[in-house]
Amino acid sequence: MLSEFDLIKQYFVRPAAGRATLGIGDDCALLTPAPGMQTAISSDMLVEGRHFFAGEDAQRLGHKSLAVNLSDLAAMGARPVAFTLALALPAAERSWLEGFSRGLFALADAHGCELIGGDTTKGPLNICITVFGEVAPGRALRRSAAVAGDDVWVSGTLGDARLALAGYRNEPVFGPGAGLAPEALAAAGTRMHTPTPRVALGVLLAERGLAHAAIDISDGLVGDLGHILEKSGVGATLNADALPAGPVLASQPRALRRAFTAAGGDDYEICFTAPPASREAIAAAAADSGTPVTRIGRIDPAPGLRWTDADGAALALELASFDHFSH
Amino acid sequence: MLSEFDLIKQYFVRPAAGRATLGIGDDCALLTPAPGMQTAISSDMLVEGRHFFAGEDAQRLGHKSLAVNLSDLAAMGARPVAFTLALALPAAERSWLEGFSRGLFALADAHGCELIGGDTTKGPLNICITVFGEVAPGRALRRSAAVAGDDVWVSGTLGDARLALAGYRNEPVFGPGAGLAPEALAAAGTRMHTPTPRVALGVLLAERGLAHAAIDISDGLVGDLGHILEKSGVGATLNADALPAGPVLASQPRALRRAFTAAGGDDYEICFTAPPASREAIAAAAADSGTPVTRIGRIDPAPGLRWTDADGAALALELASFDHFSH
Repeated sequence: MLSEFDLIKQYFVRPAAGRATLGIGDDCALLTPAPGMQTAISSDMLVEGRHFFAGEDAQRLGHKSLAVNLSDLAAMGARPVAFTLALALPAAERSWLEGFSRGLFALADAHGCELIGGDTTKGPLNICITVFGEVAPGRALRRSAAVAGDDVWVSGTLGDARLALAGYRNEPVFGPGAGLAPEALAAAGTRMHTPTPRVALGVLLAERGLAHAAIDISDGLVGDLGHILEKSGVGATLNADALPAGPVLASQPRALRRAFTAAGGDDYEICFTAPPASREAIAAAAADSGTPVTRIGRIDPAPGLRWTDADGAALALELASFDHFSH
Repeated sequence: MLSEFDLIKQYFVRPAAGRATLGIGDDCALLTPAPGMQTAISSDMLVEGRHFFAGEDAQRLGHKSLAVNLSDLAAMGARPVAFTLALALPAAERSWLEGFSRGLFALADAHGCELIGGDTTKGPLNICITVFGEVAPGRALRRSAAVAGDDVWVSGTLGDARLALAGYRNEPVFGPGAGLAPEALAAAGTRMHTPTPRVALGVLLAERGLAHAAIDISDGLVGDLGHILEKSGVGATLNADALPAGPVLASQPRALRRAFTAAGGDDYEICFTAPPASREAIAAAAADSGTPVTRIGRIDPAPGLRWTDADGAALALELASFDHFSH
């Protein structure tokens, strides 16, 4: 008899390959590390109703669950190797499992990242992925490595995921009578549901030794850059109008654009710092990885975060970051 | 302001040490693998109401959450190095966090296993630990390595955890008027709540090349040995009366003893197979690791599991294994 437990396994067990000597189906998976390389490890837990809506499309969820972990590797400059998946499900539904595994493996295969083990159990929907990457010693992009005088850069665009959330929740941010057209909401929603981890860019920044510090933007630029500033013992001045807004957010009023680019969340872009001498090489890495990058400010010796407008005039912005416990 | 998020971190962040170049507090942890060693990886997810009772004591839960993962390393013969913890909590309660982290770190420190990263979020209580160990190439104890003629061994004792579950749930297994005295239930419960991962034994079996196949007994001996038989393409004959019963179960009637030693669950002992020529060396490894072992049968060329009694007479036992989805 095929138990629910067996059913789940059907969708996830594939033969061991790549760096895995032994994959799913033993007490442990066995990985053979590349000689001389360090292993970068990150673990993220996604909970229904907090990180995604109840009833979220399974395929998109499979993509996003791995994407947020790959984004952590990207921010470290580590090349993805493998991951484990622990999954609690209220019930084992074929269509859900089929969709989830399709979304998951499409992204995994695109990055050569192998599922090597995990766990499945019955329970409130919860997805916990732990991802493994490799990086040469001394090359990892740490939060603590920003230096006064560095440029501050960000990959891609910011804020469309946060804009989609506002749209879905009918937040009163659009002004009376205003709002997002259905096609605009759908476009912004794509950024929220299927983020693009910036793995190729992160790996090039590390391998070519171009960047100092980096972090992935999951809780909003202000909060995440704040971790770099704190760990590095520095401050920063950002140009609020240089922050690259997502295509949907870009046509919104300036106040909303500033708020959602600076403190949105769910962006999964990389914020990194690099010496001004790296500017041309960074543009080359951006081109080679097919990832747009934008220079948004500089690292200062004085602690704290300061803002200017496009003309360099000081701005007083009050922006809170996303906290999974306060929303 | 100290958010709940910060509160949780307080209990888990300790400075990086040991094999970790970089621990909690960056996008990824960084581990430097020992040269030439393989990395063994296992991930387990524990859900309230399924793997432990609602309201379970936090300190015991901290212990058990890591113990079940260390048990997977033990069954592979891998030496623990580090782990990540992803935790979903309905609320951040100081007393719970204090107890959980105390139980977790007591066991982690006893095994030199370092917490290097993870995630915390709000949600239905869910604990996902991914553990990393190291083992020399070719030394890992795989499920697929059993050979006809091998002895079948089991560490420690079996069934007390299952007996405790029966007691807590008032299952009608004790006969009319019978049952467990409170002190007996408490003693059996200790096995359920604070299992002992057999790490030292597993590591010696692997390092000394004594065992062929191994598995940890989490779902019951029959089911777990069944994985070895299936993966190795062999069968086994076990002596039902040789199965080592836990001290509380040992004084129960024979039928219950046989049922709960053979198909209990939550034992976290190791079942392993080894050539008869290893018997003396296995006794030495057991003594060196302070872990009792018992020989319970042999591996046969013919598929399937057969039972005898203490006199070698064939027995017809019908025993189901624990399935997290069927209970």
